[in-house]
Amino acid sequence: MSSQPPVRRLRSDSAARPLQKGQQTKAAIVDAALGLATQIGLEGLSIGALAEVMQMSKSGVFAHFGSREELQISVVREYHARFEDEVFYPAMAFDRGLPRLRAMFDNWMKRTSVEIDSGCIYISGAVQFEDRPGPVRDALAGSVNTWLSAMRRAIEMAVAEGHLHPGTDAGQMAFEIHALILALHYEARFLGSPDSLQRALTAFDGIVGRFSTAATPVPETPPPVRSRKTTRVATQG
Amino acid sequence: MSSQPPVRRLRSDSAARPLQKGQQTKAAIVDAALGLATQIGLEGLSIGALAEVMQMSKSGVFAHFGSREELQISVVREYHARFEDEVFYPAMAFDRGLPRLRAMFDNWMKRTSVEIDSGCIYISGAVQFEDRPGPVRDALAGSVNTWLSAMRRAIEMAVAEGHLHPGTDAGQMAFEIHALILALHYEARFLGSPDSLQRALTAFDGIVGRFSTAATPVPETPPPVRSRKTTRVATQG
Repeated sequence: MSSQPPVRRLRSDSAARPLQKGQQTKAAIVDAALGLATQIGLEGLSIGALAEVMQMSKSGVFAHFGSREELQISVVREYHARFEDEVFYPAMAFDRGLPRLRAMFDNWMKRTSVEIDSGCIYISGAVQFEDRPGPVRDALAGSVNTWLSAMRRAIEMAVAEGHLHPGTDAGQMAFEIHALILALHYEARFLGSPDSLQRALTAFDGIVGRFSTAATPVPETPPPVRSRKTTRVATQG
Repeated sequence: MSSQPPVRRLRSDSAARPLQKGQQTKAAIVDAALGLATQIGLEGLSIGALAEVMQMSKSGVFAHFGSREELQISVVREYHARFEDEVFYPAMAFDRGLPRLRAMFDNWMKRTSVEIDSGCIYISGAVQFEDRPGPVRDALAGSVNTWLSAMRRAIEMAVAEGHLHPGTDAGQMAFEIHALILALHYEARFLGSPDSLQRALTAFDGIVGRFSTAATPVPETPPPVRSRKTTRVATQG
């Protein structure tokens, strides 16, 4: 997993030039396919179902993708690109370290909150493809791993900035943050628990508190801090 | 949710008398159905598929359940009963408070570890039924809620025993523990991450550390530790 490059741009860089007609149609099909996959699951996605939604012939859809698998992979790529646009890139505007890490989590939470109504293909797809090795599973797991490794890098930067303890295990912390998103989704979406969002936020603060330099288990070190405002308090060790 | 009774025995109390022939057959069908549901998902379960596995006629299976929905609910009940037998009841042998809470978590982890190969209907079922209101979803959510409320009660007992801080929010702590199980399942089963089990254990210690009487946010208190030995500290809180 450590060999994963940081968030890859899976989406083809078609933004620079206006799309050709064929590309426009393909983009429209992918858009519809993503909407459908979010509702019925990536697994349920088929060229036939999509042709119906698009009011196209099956052969018309088929001409753009060639196979159901290729269609599913295109949906994963599109999902990945949107996830980056909503979660990853906006967080890059924040200062390195805890501010950026928190922005990544906040954006992830926001996206998860929206998906409480619609479903999340990272979560439903994991269930649907856990026992189905192949390119769709690989694309999905690759996309999730790319994001998790971006989280780990953000944690490492927070260590480098002195916001988190030098001994912080980035993989451990990323695991715990990922856990909160999964629980938020499960408890809000399936159990209908209204407190889940607040609970995930509180838990995030708990995790940060544990790894932050303020919570360093080295009492002698005069350590700074979690967030800027509380710097003074930290000197009490 | 707080109105949930503590872990209900959903399984009919047939253990007292030897099973009648019809009951034996029904139990064998439920057993096979549970095996099938673990693999293909509760949603994929049908009387036809089950008849094939059991080498029975569809009408033979139908005679015992009457509907696919009833079959699915029987599977949820059986899963619930086994979960209790493996996770809940063995933990009751431990002292109230942190020892019991930890035993509940350990047993839950053990069960989740086994299910990394086979799948878990609490997790796959949540995805499959999140958009399908009805008695199957209700049975599944009821079963999960019953277990989560048993966790909350165990946490409240740990507070009463002085092992956890009086201000501990049992719902918050249960949410965070549930999160670890979901992340363990996701990262081990779907991403194939080998460290997940250790990460979940480390995270559990982190959560307990945060809520334990030793972690009371009263800086003047000379504060040791997490486990039972430190019960005395609580009186200073």
